[in-house]
Amino acid sequence: MTTTLQVQGMTCNHCKMAVTNALQELEGVNRVEVHLEKGTVDVDFDETKVSIAQLKEAVEEQGYDVE
Amino acid sequence: MTTTLQVQGMTCNHCKMAVTNALQELEGVNRVEVHLEKGTVDVDFDETKVSIAQLKEAVEEQGYDVE
Repeated sequence: MTTTLQVQGMTCNHCKMAVTNALQELEGVNRVEVHLEKGTVDVDFDETKVSIAQLKEAVEEQGYDVE
Repeated sequence: MTTTLQVQGMTCNHCKMAVTNALQELEGVNRVEVHLEKGTVDVDFDETKVSIAQLKEAVEEQGYDVE
């Protein structure tokens, strides 16, 4: 399934990379697309392997707030 | 000697780290302090080993404009 996370504080390509890598490291995450200008992250994932709560946690661990 | 570079586009701690590391890798650079809120970088360096032009180049290679 696909979800869109609202993420606060992503300002530059380093942020984009940090969030993308953190999510892609999770088992069950298939595709990640960060939209800096909108402050959103689209994640395509296998919900039998990873939960939305885990996706949020991975982003928060990088220092960003997820709504 | 010490110089202060005016750097455009540093937005977050990743940027701070990227600029700091790039400068510290140069021989002759003793101390680097990035002030994100002011967009400045203080560099203490040995002018017999490295030039201000080289300092600027190292920052620009990270994708930032130096005035």
